[in-house]
Amino acid sequence: MTKIDMNSDLGESFGRYSLGKDSEIIPLVSSVNIACGYHAGDPDVMAQTVKLAEEAGVGVGAHPGFPDLQGFGRRQMAMKPDEVQHMVTYQVGALLAFTSDKKLQHVKPHGALYNMAAKDHNLAVAICKGIAQVDENIPIYGLANSELISAAKEVGIPYAQEAFGDRNYNADGTLVSRSLPDAVIKEPKKVAERVQKMIENQEIIGLDGTKIPLKPDTICVHGDNRAALDIVEELRKTLTAANIEITPFKN
Amino acid sequence: MTKIDMNSDLGESFGRYSLGKDSEIIPLVSSVNIACGYHAGDPDVMAQTVKLAEEAGVGVGAHPGFPDLQGFGRRQMAMKPDEVQHMVTYQVGALLAFTSDKKLQHVKPHGALYNMAAKDHNLAVAICKGIAQVDENIPIYGLANSELISAAKEVGIPYAQEAFGDRNYNADGTLVSRSLPDAVIKEPKKVAERVQKMIENQEIIGLDGTKIPLKPDTICVHGDNRAALDIVEELRKTLTAANIEITPFKN
Amino acid sequence: MTKIDMNSDLGESFGRYSLGKDSEIIPLVSSVNIACGYHAGDPDVMAQTVKLAEEAGVGVGAHPGFPDLQGFGRRQMAMKPDEVQHMVTYQVGALLAFTSDKKLQHVKPHGALYNMAAKDHNLAVAICKGIAQVDENIPIYGLANSELISAAKEVGIPYAQEAFGDRNYNADGTLVSRSLPDAVIKEPKKVAERVQKMIENQEIIGLDGTKIPLKPDTICVHGDNRAALDIVEELRKTLTAANIEITPFKN
Amino acid sequence: MTKIDMNSDLGESFGRYSLGKDSEIIPLVSSVNIACGYHAGDPDVMAQTVKLAEEAGVGVGAHPGFPDLQGFGRRQMAMKPDEVQHMVTYQVGALLAFTSDKKLQHVKPHGALYNMAAKDHNLAVAICKGIAQVDENIPIYGLANSELISAAKEVGIPYAQEAFGDRNYNADGTLVSRSLPDAVIKEPKKVAERVQKMIENQEIIGLDGTKIPLKPDTICVHGDNRAALDIVEELRKTLTAANIEITPFKN
Repeated sequence: MTKIDMNSDLGESFGRYSLGKDSEIIPLVSSVNIACGYHAGDPDVMAQTVKLAEEAGVGVGAHPGFPDLQGFGRRQMAMKPDEVQHMVTYQVGALLAFTSDKKLQHVKPHGALYNMAAKDHNLAVAICKGIAQVDENIPIYGLANSELISAAKEVGIPYAQEAFGDRNYNADGTLVSRSLPDAVIKEPKKVAERVQKMIENQEIIGLDGTKIPLKPDTICVHGDNRAALDIVEELRKTLTAANIEITPFKN
Repeated sequence: MTKIDMNSDLGESFGRYSLGKDSEIIPLVSSVNIACGYHAGDPDVMAQTVKLAEEAGVGVGAHPGFPDLQGFGRRQMAMKPDEVQHMVTYQVGALLAFTSDKKLQHVKPHGALYNMAAKDHNLAVAICKGIAQVDENIPIYGLANSELISAAKEVGIPYAQEAFGDRNYNADGTLVSRSLPDAVIKEPKKVAERVQKMIENQEIIGLDGTKIPLKPDTICVHGDNRAALDIVEELRKTLTAANIEITPFKN
Repeated sequence: MTKIDMNSDLGESFGRYSLGKDSEIIPLVSSVNIACGYHAGDPDVMAQTVKLAEEAGVGVGAHPGFPDLQGFGRRQMAMKPDEVQHMVTYQVGALLAFTSDKKLQHVKPHGALYNMAAKDHNLAVAICKGIAQVDENIPIYGLANSELISAAKEVGIPYAQEAFGDRNYNADGTLVSRSLPDAVIKEPKKVAERVQKMIENQEIIGLDGTKIPLKPDTICVHGDNRAALDIVEELRKTLTAANIEITPFKN
Repeated sequence: MTKIDMNSDLGESFGRYSLGKDSEIIPLVSSVNIACGYHAGDPDVMAQTVKLAEEAGVGVGAHPGFPDLQGFGRRQMAMKPDEVQHMVTYQVGALLAFTSDKKLQHVKPHGALYNMAAKDHNLAVAICKGIAQVDENIPIYGLANSELISAAKEVGIPYAQEAFGDRNYNADGTLVSRSLPDAVIKEPKKVAERVQKMIENQEIIGLDGTKIPLKPDTICVHGDNRAALDIVEELRKTLTAANIEITPFKN
């Protein structure tokens, strides 16, 4: 039976500020990326979110980001590779400490850090080294075919190729920028069909019709509003009907 | 041969700000308490300091403090026990991740957190639980005979009783407040003699003459200025001459 | 015609985090206290909130708090009077800069800072000095009859005596602690009657029946949830029917 | 008599961290740029530094930077123009509040913010709008002939053209990047002669020999180490001997 992982960001509340529908998205996914206190999350939220995820039996991953709470880790920052490496070790180590068995299923860089590293080899290597410093057996979730994947191979840590069902792709396999009108796909059925084909055909059709080879290990979904949850529910239904098992990523 | 540990705070620089004579104090002590990014230190400083300490062969400990960089963790904050527990787990986990063998010799709470917990049982228990969440075999360094020691017993983690050679004690075993004139002892010879007697007689003489039973496992020393280093050098000389071995704490 | 001011906290969102029903509470009150970036708010939120408040014609005040975003300024911090004075000047100056006419109607300390200063004369004086440094004509909103009022007199800045309709009072004029069951009054009608009597009789009845003399200039109300808004609407109705005009505080 | 302003960064300490030789550089310059708490400085340091500067009679300016204490404001951040505008208003307003007369001589953006805005018109306009919101009569100090100057003209605030004696220039009037070997000039005499010629000839010779027209209003100097102070002393001597008066910038 074909298998796929579905991952979503979690634990993005901070202090008095509540964000995301964590308890609603958890039953719909197989893996979660938990914020580590830099772009979102705080130690109380982390403790509570790890507990919630462990009780639900989903795969627990760290979601390190830039040190920019106001910008939610979505603003590019020109940090040196060494600085990125150390801040990844810091955040991953902090989250790991809250787990019951001191193991993480994966690490997925957040926001601008993810996007920059997908194209910047040195940055991607720095992230992978930061993870390897904690435990070289923790896989990184990175944009399929991007610098994050080649960096993981170079540094020698496992990886999962990540794909996006609700995003259009350029011919070179990068995501169409959110600043462009065609970036995001919003109809649940369209997203679900897209992901099913991606998994079955091991390719995705770029915006210009180019067939891009893609073998996704994990699909990124969102749970921060009702429309996002609708997409995930449709996606689950479609994949299950197509005999594709949604299950945590195993390296 | 009688043994004693000597510990000092380290890794208190932050970004462009440099603090402490780390490379000068390391050869003089047997254990170091490394700041974890909340009251001092940043991921780059932590990476560098752990490396320095490991190369020197001193015992590496985490030094968690209040989230108050401006106040250097020296201002009391009314955090709930749960909040303290989680922020200790966070900081200890973050530092642990930088070590080569994923082990810490100890954890020593910093500044106001240390002082408050020495007297507040619930706070002390919260700190110990925060450490136990990371690894229940990591000892806490706490003021001898204080709530930190009784909390460690209650939570079930190891502990080292800490004593201060350069501070006067009240009759009840607490330290004379720094706001009082007699709080600190500055002459190196006096400090050294005091520590030697404390170790040999297993007691310390309080400011009012009271004999306070005290069996120190570790002595706190400072390395942030020349005068402090002079005290440590005198102390080493005195203890070595008295056949007391300065060596990392073993639980 | 009798006049009273009604004030509410505003601008407590931060970055991606949204908090409070600002646009719903504004038409119901005569004055607003805008967070200044330390316990809540950021420069973008401040710019937007000042604009909103100025367009609505309500009195604009600064709402400085402790530097503790995670704790929302509700955790006591042991800052020195000098530190408090300077952080008040900083926050008040920052907010003032966003106003059109470079004037503030008032300053109201937030959360733990307000509560601590109500009882701690030195802290209250520090806050008043911090305000006076910006402009000695800006009134402080302080708990009626508390140290905040006596400090304002001592420092020589104007003040407004603040009262709480939804809180029970101790016989000495302090608020019943929120940790006690009788602290908060939730029925809109009860709150409204209470405030009306307080204004008309210039006294409030303490929990034990004691009559506490009280001449309120401003009433504190909340707008962070539906129930709070219901209270404010009832209060407006009651006061208007009693011929009490709700209008911004004039010194 | 020809006049020139000499400005230097000040007030860059933070909490327990001390940085810069503020009391040594103040008597050597005519204007100072005081950090505003985002990349350096805190309210206590700001209060103290404004007092020091006012007592010395030098021109007091605000020195706003990116919200990045760890990176000392030297790391580029991709903030939107609106965000930059508001954070400039916030920081300038905060510093202004500490002055005796509620006036600032100037505002000079710091580090990466300065460098990015020198080349990015939208960013430069955002900074100028942020200043104008506080007071449209406050001049901005910007790299001579750069986008900062054209943005000031567009927004309608005054400006001072800034030049660097210790930096080499490219043919287009931009500074040679610090990552290149020829970026910085270290010999005091060379720097002093360079500045004298720049003022007298109203041009500077680029690294490739190109004559770049330049009419400097203010010269940037440094005071964070002994070598920097030596340069400033030499510069003062040279300019004084050449009958060039060092005096605060007047718009």
